[in-house]
Amino acid sequence: VSYLRNTWYVAAWSDELPPAGMLARTLLDEPVVLIRNSAGAVSALVDRCPHRFAPLSAGVLRGDSIQCRYHGLEFSSDGRCVRNPHGPLAAGLAVKGFAVAEAHRAIWIWMGDASKSDPAQIPDLAYLSAAPASAFSCGHLHSKGNYELCVDNILDLSHTDYLHPSTLGGGAVTSTHQKVTADEQSIQVEWYCANTRPAPLLVSLIPELPPQTDFVTRVRWYAPAVMRLLSATVPAGQAVEQGYVNLNAHMMTPETRASTHYFFAATRNYCVDDAALNARLAETRKHIFATEDMPMIERVQQRMGEREFWSLEPRLLPVDDAPVRVRRRLQQLLAAEATGS
Amino acid sequence: VSYLRNTWYVAAWSDELPPAGMLARTLLDEPVVLIRNSAGAVSALVDRCPHRFAPLSAGVLRGDSIQCRYHGLEFSSDGRCVRNPHGPLAAGLAVKGFAVAEAHRAIWIWMGDASKSDPAQIPDLAYLSAAPASAFSCGHLHSKGNYELCVDNILDLSHTDYLHPSTLGGGAVTSTHQKVTADEQSIQVEWYCANTRPAPLLVSLIPELPPQTDFVTRVRWYAPAVMRLLSATVPAGQAVEQGYVNLNAHMMTPETRASTHYFFAATRNYCVDDAALNARLAETRKHIFATEDMPMIERVQQRMGEREFWSLEPRLLPVDDAPVRVRRRLQQLLAAEATGS
Amino acid sequence: VSYLRNTWYVAAWSDELPPAGMLARTLLDEPVVLIRNSAGAVSALVDRCPHRFAPLSAGVLRGDSIQCRYHGLEFSSDGRCVRNPHGPLAAGLAVKGFAVAEAHRAIWIWMGDASKSDPAQIPDLAYLSAAPASAFSCGHLHSKGNYELCVDNILDLSHTDYLHPSTLGGGAVTSTHQKVTADEQSIQVEWYCANTRPAPLLVSLIPELPPQTDFVTRVRWYAPAVMRLLSATVPAGQAVEQGYVNLNAHMMTPETRASTHYFFAATRNYCVDDAALNARLAETRKHIFATEDMPMIERVQQRMGEREFWSLEPRLLPVDDAPVRVRRRLQQLLAAEATGS
Repeated sequence: VSYLRNTWYVAAWSDELPPAGMLARTLLDEPVVLIRNSAGAVSALVDRCPHRFAPLSAGVLRGDSIQCRYHGLEFSSDGRCVRNPHGPLAAGLAVKGFAVAEAHRAIWIWMGDASKSDPAQIPDLAYLSAAPASAFSCGHLHSKGNYELCVDNILDLSHTDYLHPSTLGGGAVTSTHQKVTADEQSIQVEWYCANTRPAPLLVSLIPELPPQTDFVTRVRWYAPAVMRLLSATVPAGQAVEQGYVNLNAHMMTPETRASTHYFFAATRNYCVDDAALNARLAETRKHIFATEDMPMIERVQQRMGEREFWSLEPRLLPVDDAPVRVRRRLQQLLAAEATGS
Repeated sequence: VSYLRNTWYVAAWSDELPPAGMLARTLLDEPVVLIRNSAGAVSALVDRCPHRFAPLSAGVLRGDSIQCRYHGLEFSSDGRCVRNPHGPLAAGLAVKGFAVAEAHRAIWIWMGDASKSDPAQIPDLAYLSAAPASAFSCGHLHSKGNYELCVDNILDLSHTDYLHPSTLGGGAVTSTHQKVTADEQSIQVEWYCANTRPAPLLVSLIPELPPQTDFVTRVRWYAPAVMRLLSATVPAGQAVEQGYVNLNAHMMTPETRASTHYFFAATRNYCVDDAALNARLAETRKHIFATEDMPMIERVQQRMGEREFWSLEPRLLPVDDAPVRVRRRLQQLLAAEATGS
Repeated sequence: VSYLRNTWYVAAWSDELPPAGMLARTLLDEPVVLIRNSAGAVSALVDRCPHRFAPLSAGVLRGDSIQCRYHGLEFSSDGRCVRNPHGPLAAGLAVKGFAVAEAHRAIWIWMGDASKSDPAQIPDLAYLSAAPASAFSCGHLHSKGNYELCVDNILDLSHTDYLHPSTLGGGAVTSTHQKVTADEQSIQVEWYCANTRPAPLLVSLIPELPPQTDFVTRVRWYAPAVMRLLSATVPAGQAVEQGYVNLNAHMMTPETRASTHYFFAATRNYCVDDAALNARLAETRKHIFATEDMPMIERVQQRMGEREFWSLEPRLLPVDDAPVRVRRRLQQLLAAEATGS
């Protein structure tokens, strides 16, 4: 089992890494140190000195370079050793670096062949950068489950009706047949539920909501684990854009085989100047993810143990259409990467 | 290494599982959810939804069925899916169930071929159900040791003289040759010590005890790990039944290779209406088991590590006669089960 | 991978084991119980009863023998069973003992062929026993790293300039070429830095220090992991003995592959009657080791994981000369021991 490498993963939210700051994070089983210099530029290195394997993240930033805390070697942002207090600057004295890019309020990392990296391939999440502060929130949670389980969780939103019945779910998704479409870059699943009760959380936040609305949900997945999620509550007969539209992002980066960095963000088209509502929404969502989704995914992982998903012979349902297509697409991409095609 | 499967294990004490209640427990390395419906009937299922592997014990009881918290599938007490909100009730959509029986104030589980299960094979512990509340106690402890180590501990009671010298032991067992007998269903060990000092705990509880008594102890083992224990302190020359007789049960169910559910119960023929004495005895016994036996078994397991008992070449003593016979009987039963004979 | 066995390891400081006392410690992956009888003699046994594998250290000392807590067997200090309450004293009923010796305020253990053990081979650390109480301190820390990483840490003291810049390091070691010498018994590395600033810790303790001094450091290693360390701050032009001389010892005993017992001691030739200074020095050193060295070694071990040091292809520097020679010497000694030569 392996990870897709020639692709972009979210390494951190931009605001997790201040100027002249460092952040250590294990990504795809590898220790990585993210560095932002005082001018704002971001770089990423293997977080292990090539000399004696000390974590560079335990060291000190000196201008654009990072100094190892153990014996003082200094490395530039591309991994070259630029100062060796104990002798000459030998060519082998370097630490592996990764291509990074900053986009859509996040720091992205390419952990494969850097020569193939192209920031233009980062999925378009421009609505995140365009959102005003009063209508934007983002967060990071640690999940004790494989990243594919986390992806499944977003691609089959029927779970909201059972795991979040008093907030995000209200029965609408379960009662609607989903429509799954795919193109070369993405796989999309949509639920269009006419004339249903709005989700309890929205009802509690927006008193003027009509008792019956249309409810539209669209999830678009990009490899390996980036998802745009539109969730719209629409007065009957109106266009989606005229409804209460939440535009979210859910992005998973494997930490290890059995743990995941879960990055999420949200913006919306209603009450965009209401900072108090924004804070309440952000807090509520994070609470739901942390106390309902993460524990469920952790328990599922515990039940699976070390075993591979398919080897457990899951009894799949129609709602698994999108998750299964995504799992197959990932397998194809992994196979293509393995054969170099 | 494997477990005996076509046999009864204690899964829980009856009073651990109230009406319309659930209890999750790992037994023989398998996650199990025990369910009691509102009418009092008990069932047991693999605690893992066949759809996406969520633990059913995280779900909700709906009448006689259990609803998965993740995507809402509902299963009846025999494991059939009785409601699928996302599509038809396919035959494969079922969770494995186990035969269970309730007897002697305990819930018993059969984790092998259910067609071979027969509640009549549950060892006779009728004295437990017959005991009045004021002369009965039971408990459950978690042991960080293999269940065979826990069985050894009961079958060689000479340990009471060294591990519990100020309470249960007084030197009587060590000073007596044990007598081991066996039949097809059980193996029994008996110590008959004439004219000895009663155990310190009994002396402290029963002031009128004579200074010298006979002391009779009998342990009868039934496969795989159920033991009846009679311990009688008898004024010289009287029959066992006329003495102070404790009738206990010690029952071990493997959780994993290196951990065990230890179920114990006690009744007696003296002061049977004395609820205060009953509580004091129950508390004292549980304290002894939890602070003396469990730590010793855990340390022994630590010393053994992953290694198999015999590979460590134990230097066995005459007092190991019964434990060794039981280990061999278990090997024979396992071999017979493996060959289907 | 294995440990050198026909050699002396420090098992404990003498004062860790009072008369009629026991100390349980895992050494070289083996559980060991150290025993001092009431007359002061020390012995060491495998900490596992040969009968049922209970730790003897959970037992009771009875005169010169130790009684197992589980079933009462008693063993003498050489491991013979001297009392079996359950039957005859069979020859096989013995626990393995180890050769021990007490020297230089420490208890040493020989975990190989006892017939080859010779206390004369214990490295000469007589300066430790000779030191007055007001100029001596010693301690024991648990390191979550392989013992060779701990040895590397002492043999390459350039780390003091980066890991301890405000106390032990001041740049002197980095700025000096070390001189490495070897003989049959030991490997020595020396740094002689003329006319430099004394280390910050010494400056803070000795106000009358001149601003520039010579700084001499010598580490002498004896297999497998015993090091004498001399560190002298010498007014310019004077002999080393006339300076402020610290004489330390750093001794590592493997607990497991990835953890180490770190024993350290210190004496000095200045202010030898100043008990307050002695206490302050002892506390400061232990704090530095516990909060700077141990965490760094633990992090390095985490970065290495289960992998062998050389397989990670470390980019070694001139300062690694002594550590590498020591690693090679250890390999030669291990190979010699394996072939019995």
